[in-house]
This record gives sequence, C-alpha cells and structure tokens, in this order.
Amino acid sequence: MKALATLTLAAATVLALPAHAQFAKPEDAVKYRQSALSVMGTHFSRIGAMANGRAPYDAKAAVENAQVVNDLARLPWAGFGPGTDKLSAKAKPEIWTEQAKFKDHSEKLVAESAKLLAAAKTQNLDNLKAAFGATAGTCKACHDNFRSN
Amino acid sequence: MKALATLTLAAATVLALPAHAQFAKPEDAVKYRQSALSVMGTHFSRIGAMANGRAPYDAKAAVENAQVVNDLARLPWAGFGPGTDKLSAKAKPEIWTEQAKFKDHSEKLVAESAKLLAAAKTQNLDNLKAAFGATAGTCKACHDNFRSN
Repeated sequence: MKALATLTLAAATVLALPAHAQFAKPEDAVKYRQSALSVMGTHFSRIGAMANGRAPYDAKAAVENAQVVNDLARLPWAGFGPGTDKLSAKAKPEIWTEQAKFKDHSEKLVAESAKLLAAAKTQNLDNLKAAFGATAGTCKACHDNFRSN
Repeated sequence: MKALATLTLAAATVLALPAHAQFAKPEDAVKYRQSALSVMGTHFSRIGAMANGRAPYDAKAAVENAQVVNDLARLPWAGFGPGTDKLSAKAKPEIWTEQAKFKDHSEKLVAESAKLLAAAKTQNLDNLKAAFGATAGTCKACHDNFRSN
C-alpha cells in the first residue's frame, strides 16, 4: 500500500506542474501525451493478446511489457495542461472542465498498472488475466468519459 | 558492471526479435519508434536545460527525468525491424545495411542512460553535466551516422 501511495503522490506531483514549465509549446505537450499513450498502448496490447489467447503466454515477455506500461502510466497526464485543450479533436473538453475526475482516472491507471506488473511477476496466467482486465477497465472508463470516438 | 551487462543483454534480446512478431504493420513499428524517441527526447532535453544552465538545477527533477530516459532507452530499436526501412525519410538506409553498427550505437545509449541515472542520483550537478554530455554524445553519434537532417 505504501508503494501505491507513493506512486499516486508522484502522479499528483506531475499533474500539478503547469504545462508551460514542462513544454515549450502546447503542441509539444500534445505530441508528448499522444506519444506516451501510444507506446504504453503498444505494450499493453501485447499483454492483452496473451490474456485473451491471441498470443501464447510468455511469462518473461509479460513482465517486460508490464514494466513498460508501469513506467509510462504516470507520464501522459502532464501533456494535458492549460492551453492544450483545442489541439486535438479526440480530447474532450471535459478533461479541462472536470479536472479532478480526469486526475482520478489517471491515478487509477497508475495504481492498476503497478498491480499489473506485480501480477505479471507471479508468472501465473490467471493472475495476469485478472490484472489485465482491471487495468483495461481503467483505460475504458477514462476513454468513455474523456475521449471522442 | 554486472548491471550494465544485463542491460546490454536485454537490449540485444529486444533487437533480435523480428518486427512482425511485435507489430501488426510496419507503419506501427515506425510510429512506435518515433513516439518512444520523442518521449525520451523530451525528458532528456529537460536534463540538458539543467546541465547547460538554461533551467535551475532541481536534483529531484533530474532523477525523475533520467529515470524516464533510462526506462525508454531500450525501446525504440525494436521499431527498426525488417520492412520498416522505406517508411521514414529521416531513417537512413545504413540502419539496415550496417545493423551491427546501429545496434552498437543503441546499446551505448542504453549503457550511458544507466550512468546518467546513477549520476543524477548523486545529486551533484557536475556529475549530471558530465553524464549528460556523455549521453548526448551517443545521441549525436547515432544521429550523425543514421539520421538525415
């Protein structure tokens, strides 16, 4: 629990920084968040392929992919700072009008991705499937609320 | 030294996997490598700003940024697999005709980024500057050889 609390605090710290302190231009922030989400999604989908039986279960690869997901889960949110709300048609205005809710979603992903990595390390496919489902649920909940199409 | 050897082996393992095993389409591999390089570059440039005096030295931020660079340094290379050589004007043909040399460059980055993280953790700006310079040298050497403009 302590590790999770630390992770959540780290995410909160990143989110609290103003975008202008981190990116030279709002467009840079958009590119950053899209890139981080894309790399994370690539590795997450490889775990999904194992969890859903579309790829053979490879315990070592599952850990490697979960590690990358966990490494990246805290990053994209800094790219949704002030002034970046009109630059992508996929990002709904609610990201900026319901910031506390959006932050809550991002913190849930950080927490679930830590559990996903722990599950992968047990080298048990059932554990991986359960943790993949829970993590995918946080992706979907956030996309349903905050992403168009 | 053992940690470095392990890191290098991990990079070699990733590089050895055929692209088709990791990406549905060659375009996905290109998007992946560009995204990973972009996120890594964002965090590396924040360390550069501190190392070059364009931003105040923040020891905690230096560690956080170096951690991301180190997390991402091993990733992009899997996106340079067979069939991805005609999809980006920036990627020189030499990446595929001189694969051993390209791999050597990527492994140097993995090694230097681990040293960069270790230097950041010393919380000494001179150490950070030295390690930043060495890491930036690996970026430049690879770009000079393998990247157009």
